[in-house]
Amino acid sequence: MELEINKDFIEKIKQLILSKDDDALLTLLAEEHPADIAEIIDLLNLNDATYLFKLLDSEKTAEALMEIDEDDREKILQNLSAEEIAEEIDELDTDDAADIIAELPKDRKTEVISEIEDDEHAKDIVELLQYKEGTAGSLMAKELVKAKETWKIPTCVSRMRTQAREVTHVHSIYVVDKKDILLGRLSLKDLLVASDDAFVSDIYIPKVDFVNVNDEAEDVARIMQKYDLEAIPVVNDKNQLLGRITIDDIVDFIKEEAEKDYQMAAGLTDDVEADDTILQLSKARLPWLILGLFGGLAAAAIMGGFENALKSFPILFFFTPLIAAMAGNVGVQSSAIIVQGLANDNIKGSMWKRLLKEVSLSLFNGVILAILVIIFGVIQNYDTKISITLALSLIVVIIFAALIGTFVPLILDKKGIDPAVATGPFITTSNDIFGIFIFFFIAKVILGF
Amino acid sequence: MELEINKDFIEKIKQLILSKDDDALLTLLAEEHPADIAEIIDLLNLNDATYLFKLLDSEKTAEALMEIDEDDREKILQNLSAEEIAEEIDELDTDDAADIIAELPKDRKTEVISEIEDDEHAKDIVELLQYKEGTAGSLMAKELVKAKETWKIPTCVSRMRTQAREVTHVHSIYVVDKKDILLGRLSLKDLLVASDDAFVSDIYIPKVDFVNVNDEAEDVARIMQKYDLEAIPVVNDKNQLLGRITIDDIVDFIKEEAEKDYQMAAGLTDDVEADDTILQLSKARLPWLILGLFGGLAAAAIMGGFENALKSFPILFFFTPLIAAMAGNVGVQSSAIIVQGLANDNIKGSMWKRLLKEVSLSLFNGVILAILVIIFGVIQNYDTKISITLALSLIVVIIFAALIGTFVPLILDKKGIDPAVATGPFITTSNDIFGIFIFFFIAKVILGF
Repeated sequence: MELEINKDFIEKIKQLILSKDDDALLTLLAEEHPADIAEIIDLLNLNDATYLFKLLDSEKTAEALMEIDEDDREKILQNLSAEEIAEEIDELDTDDAADIIAELPKDRKTEVISEIEDDEHAKDIVELLQYKEGTAGSLMAKELVKAKETWKIPTCVSRMRTQAREVTHVHSIYVVDKKDILLGRLSLKDLLVASDDAFVSDIYIPKVDFVNVNDEAEDVARIMQKYDLEAIPVVNDKNQLLGRITIDDIVDFIKEEAEKDYQMAAGLTDDVEADDTILQLSKARLPWLILGLFGGLAAAAIMGGFENALKSFPILFFFTPLIAAMAGNVGVQSSAIIVQGLANDNIKGSMWKRLLKEVSLSLFNGVILAILVIIFGVIQNYDTKISITLALSLIVVIIFAALIGTFVPLILDKKGIDPAVATGPFITTSNDIFGIFIFFFIAKVILGF
Repeated sequence: MELEINKDFIEKIKQLILSKDDDALLTLLAEEHPADIAEIIDLLNLNDATYLFKLLDSEKTAEALMEIDEDDREKILQNLSAEEIAEEIDELDTDDAADIIAELPKDRKTEVISEIEDDEHAKDIVELLQYKEGTAGSLMAKELVKAKETWKIPTCVSRMRTQAREVTHVHSIYVVDKKDILLGRLSLKDLLVASDDAFVSDIYIPKVDFVNVNDEAEDVARIMQKYDLEAIPVVNDKNQLLGRITIDDIVDFIKEEAEKDYQMAAGLTDDVEADDTILQLSKARLPWLILGLFGGLAAAAIMGGFENALKSFPILFFFTPLIAAMAGNVGVQSSAIIVQGLANDNIKGSMWKRLLKEVSLSLFNGVILAILVIIFGVIQNYDTKISITLALSLIVVIIFAALIGTFVPLILDKKGIDPAVATGPFITTSNDIFGIFIFFFIAKVILGF
């Protein structure tokens, strides 16, 4: 069912662009979904992409524009005039239109907005541009279907026909009073089964979920998921209906957030893809690698401080990667559980209880791993004191790493910082350093060098 | 707008259950959404939860059942008779009903199914139970609204009124021929604006996205996201309409997949939460920690093989955590990019090109890090040969780690294994071992010990 966009297909399109065979191109792409057009455009070079973009109807390219890779979109938009961009904007819903305009350089923004034909559309877009990223307002669209409580059902149906033409997916009809204050909702289903002499006020459902325009996008996503909503109305502080958020935007939001957390945990700062340039990839990767490098140099400096152990207990130095790896792994595990728990809003209970639990958990895991190390030491005929040093250090390091992994994200979250920064390289690097220090400190106490 | 479920509220409910004040409980919870009921139940002990569950109307508890933590659900269901479970099932859509029944022990399954009142419902559920997890069939519900192409619009509207009563969200009306073969769709909007003397065949849209019942759930999610679909019909190999998948199930699926990948990357095997027991958490964490432990012991064994370096170049042993950390970080970065690319289906191009790119990228990053190490060496007055050994090893280890991080997930994916297993501890542990071996091997060549 999905269009198979293979090499041959792209080659054919390139040929048709080269020979400027517009008719053949239009026929070939007439039935394609904008998302497929976007995928084709992503695979063409900038000139070909711009050519295709200008050739195709803006009804099709406008939706495609939303799906194109951000970098490619920026370049294509640079090749279009303000008027041409405004034509695309005219075809888009207000939320998508505002997203596109927000990406333009400042002076082009005003230019494009002034070129938008429909004044109402332009006004709505300007309104949406005000809302801060990460708020309900930034996800909301102005397109919706609303009914006044005073309407009769036939009036409502005929008004709805007009309104529905403007709205892609209807979902529900919001019911408002004369001051535009949200009262409830009418489901399409209810409207279909209602008798003709009823009023909207007779059949509307007064219970309606809604969010405030300043609510955090994350909370909106959580509420829509929790209550399985496909759209949610957005109101201002006076409860006046401003717009609505639909589930497709939430799907994109959830996916982006998950990818961001995943990349953060993997030590990637920017949103990168396998096909990005080496420079883009390096920009995302190098900062964390440099952090890791400094961590490693710090660990080396710590070992330098315990240099005299080299003569009497050189074997200790064979186990630093083990200690560092365990500290890192435990830290990442603990922080991942906390970061996910915070995202799902199910971190409850007191800090003291959590502290006690983390300590018991890591004591339990640590003892099991310590026993394994002692067994290994017996097999390898290690000096008992060395085995005890290793086993005891493992237990202490694991408890320490678990506490860092648990409480650093919790503290960051309390301070309003994204706790996901405390996953991945950040936690492994700091745990490496502390782990190695603890190891040599315990060794010094037990072995006395 | 969302119910604030705080300590006091839960305490009040506990008191009311203790005093068996059913009327007060019913009044208190009358207006609550099933998702909130689920949250309350999650916070009660098993006895109180079961009491509440039996007290409340199954219309409410059935939906709540879907939202409860899986472990709690299992325990509550054990406290209910087959007849009581069947009552809950009667209230659920077929897809949710099948999910609940699939979780029951084998003999209870048959018992519960035989207690379901509505035979049609029971038949649908039994059909859904056949489909394998991870396929479109496993996400699909039998509830949908369909129209025959031969119907007149008024017939269609009145038939729809009946059908719509059974279906929570209508989305679109699927149009079929007399053999139930999917022909297209009717949007509710189109139906609202159609004239009364038209036929369904006149106004239906013949272009409809659909999936096969055996398609992978991941592909269904990708298609619904790509084309911004809120529901998609599911057909068998003969193109007969079997059911439909709605976006709310896809939202849950996307979230679960993202969490699974994230946990895998963090070294957590089971789906665990911060509030799970120490035993559950250890079961998820220990396997990876033991893997890390063996990795560390292997690294120690490798260093044992280069023991004679201890006398002449003991400083080398200060840098093993650095080498291991860099190998681990680079491996995780590379594998995360590939795993995400595979999930988003945008890993294209030949293996050779990718190989060349990975090598260039890591050479570039490696050289920058090597320069930093050499500068550090100059400041610290290191022997030049030591600095060169460190710098060169870093470059080689980074290239090697990037290749492992890139190609292990790609190869796993080709073999049909989830590439996400190759992220996190698996990649860090193997890269640690190889990294340390490469480091000492290069040191031996340069320094000649």
